[in-house]
Amino acid sequence: MLSISHRGHAMPASPIRKLVPFAEAAKRKGVKVYHLNIGQPDIETPKACLDAVRNSDMKVLEYSHSAGNESYRKKLSEYYAKNDIHVSPQEMIITTGGSEAILFGFMACLDQDDEVIVPEPFYANYNGFAIQAGVRVVPIGSDIETGFALPPIADFEKAITPKTKAIIVCNPNNPTGYLYSAAEMETLKEIVIKHNLFLFADEAYREFCYEGSHTSAMHLKGTEQNVILMDTISKRYSACGGRIGAFVTKNKEALDAAMKFAQARLSPPYYAQLLGEAAVDLPDDYFNATKAEYKLRRDTIVKRLNAMNGVFCPNPGGAFYAMAKLPIDDCDKFCQWLLESFSYNNATVMLAPATGFYSTPGRGKDEVRLAYVLNTEAIHQAMDCLEVALQQYPGRTI
Amino acid sequence: MLSISHRGHAMPASPIRKLVPFAEAAKRKGVKVYHLNIGQPDIETPKACLDAVRNSDMKVLEYSHSAGNESYRKKLSEYYAKNDIHVSPQEMIITTGGSEAILFGFMACLDQDDEVIVPEPFYANYNGFAIQAGVRVVPIGSDIETGFALPPIADFEKAITPKTKAIIVCNPNNPTGYLYSAAEMETLKEIVIKHNLFLFADEAYREFCYEGSHTSAMHLKGTEQNVILMDTISKRYSACGGRIGAFVTKNKEALDAAMKFAQARLSPPYYAQLLGEAAVDLPDDYFNATKAEYKLRRDTIVKRLNAMNGVFCPNPGGAFYAMAKLPIDDCDKFCQWLLESFSYNNATVMLAPATGFYSTPGRGKDEVRLAYVLNTEAIHQAMDCLEVALQQYPGRTI
Repeated sequence: MLSISHRGHAMPASPIRKLVPFAEAAKRKGVKVYHLNIGQPDIETPKACLDAVRNSDMKVLEYSHSAGNESYRKKLSEYYAKNDIHVSPQEMIITTGGSEAILFGFMACLDQDDEVIVPEPFYANYNGFAIQAGVRVVPIGSDIETGFALPPIADFEKAITPKTKAIIVCNPNNPTGYLYSAAEMETLKEIVIKHNLFLFADEAYREFCYEGSHTSAMHLKGTEQNVILMDTISKRYSACGGRIGAFVTKNKEALDAAMKFAQARLSPPYYAQLLGEAAVDLPDDYFNATKAEYKLRRDTIVKRLNAMNGVFCPNPGGAFYAMAKLPIDDCDKFCQWLLESFSYNNATVMLAPATGFYSTPGRGKDEVRLAYVLNTEAIHQAMDCLEVALQQYPGRTI
Repeated sequence: MLSISHRGHAMPASPIRKLVPFAEAAKRKGVKVYHLNIGQPDIETPKACLDAVRNSDMKVLEYSHSAGNESYRKKLSEYYAKNDIHVSPQEMIITTGGSEAILFGFMACLDQDDEVIVPEPFYANYNGFAIQAGVRVVPIGSDIETGFALPPIADFEKAITPKTKAIIVCNPNNPTGYLYSAAEMETLKEIVIKHNLFLFADEAYREFCYEGSHTSAMHLKGTEQNVILMDTISKRYSACGGRIGAFVTKNKEALDAAMKFAQARLSPPYYAQLLGEAAVDLPDDYFNATKAEYKLRRDTIVKRLNAMNGVFCPNPGGAFYAMAKLPIDDCDKFCQWLLESFSYNNATVMLAPATGFYSTPGRGKDEVRLAYVLNTEAIHQAMDCLEVALQQYPGRTI
């Protein structure tokens, strides 16, 4: 019998997508499903960006440079400078989404059985990239009670072994929405310098900060050789389908290694590089309206959640996610029940069970992640559903 | 000292791109460089395909399905049916170029230290994907004297070990242009069935066959569980920059495993799926003009090469590559010398040294690959340069 690889077996299925068949079944029954389960923004992609693609006039859709078009890298360098991140077009590789930037980082910096530390809960796909690279993800716990603040330095020290090669931090965080403070980023700096580690910085949600400002890992002085920025335009400009990200570092050895992986796959997609290039020329106040909208939604959803009996939702400082602790026995069962057995005013809500974001068994069983990618009216309707559901769910704990 | 991974060190730099700085220096000196070194077609991308992207009217550039848009998979299924390949939209995953289809195949089917057999010379980037997957590429030699026909079955048998999990074959072949016959494909079928191996079929150049017809691995009866088709629209429609390929198989276990890798990277690029979808509706005779043009170029370049003193170029049956044996000491030195120290009528030619396509040390030292991606007039001028160069090159052997 021909068999696939152990790695193919070990690879986790998407924890978010496994509920999709239940949502489809609900829709077939005529039930309206409010999707708060995935980070697909509903905000329109800027017209100037879409037009850059619509007005493209090449005769041959050629490979771009393996590191991405130079004209785009120059523009992106301007964008970073506006964010006080000073990198040249030669210090970046344009990638196929932030996903590929993460994969390149794992591949270029870590070997089979090396360990990467990550505050838990964390972006579930880190597990998938780790399995591809043969790398071990070592979680250290952060807690909903503190709003998912950075775990104490002692917890990092305890987790570090001779196999530890890197820490990965997503700031603002997916799934928690937590915005790491300047002081917390300094703590990370101390750890990576003391223990000679890479700091992988996933800053997909950089532009969406609602309390205070963003401290990029690239702002930390003295970590130039440690930091690898894994970036994407997906959320920034509502351009998820473009699949354009960036691997950015001042560590020449890591950049050169990543470049060899980039050459093997030839080039990143051409079209959305045009889109990304146009995006840098958007007015400086472009993000204001988007941020105001997301902040309004955040305020709405957090207020509604905390007004429900037995529910706790810390106020997230950034991104467009909130984590909530619910009075339920099991979030996987609850999220499935919402789709399979519940409706209110002929509608229901789809949430992401938090267990998919924890790798420590048993953690997150009474938590869910909510992506506030719907307008406030829809959020209110979704919260109406959730409130009633929590009174009816057979596995409720109060 | 913070160090990158061993895998990052082991990863090969692109053998084709390492000459780029010398080409750039030649151009700065005002020398015209005829690029026969890379497989970037000059044939125009069909206007209907480019228009499909230009006329796109989405408001939000969303993620597509992780397996690619269903509408595109349906269309692609129609395309395959026209080529007597019968696969449903559920038996394929749209990938980011053929590159990702190869990577998914290696990741889903092979484990660390597993072996994949490949006729040599072979597409150099297989090495890069193998290093990412921790897999060993085992070459078995084919020879320019036979036009790079499939090595005898005994050579495969000799190379098979308990670690062997797959054979990879590129048909028509890059770099040799060789078109495997129906009988040779039947031989491969025998081997993979007898030894219970996957057959990875890279058919990027399927549409470009000039002598006889194409036998797809998907045409072989009884290998449904063995065959994984790794496809791309890059060469077919001159759409290399779109980064759209496909992983196609009737092996459900392999497909499900690949799907988990596809979910981890979220989705393939959106725009070029529109392009690929439009391509399936091109008139049935669309490829005729392109094939006629490539055939004319092939006939031109092969004739010119074989007319040169000491040069041998077998007639390739497909793709848009030719391999030639030259009367030289070292193809790497020669290709660099062409750019650095030679010009004729203020022009020179850039070729791919064949050593990059061999992994057996010493093989291919007097061979080069020529991609006939220029029109016949340019090919004649490039061949004029090469003919003179072979008379002047200090390392000539006749």
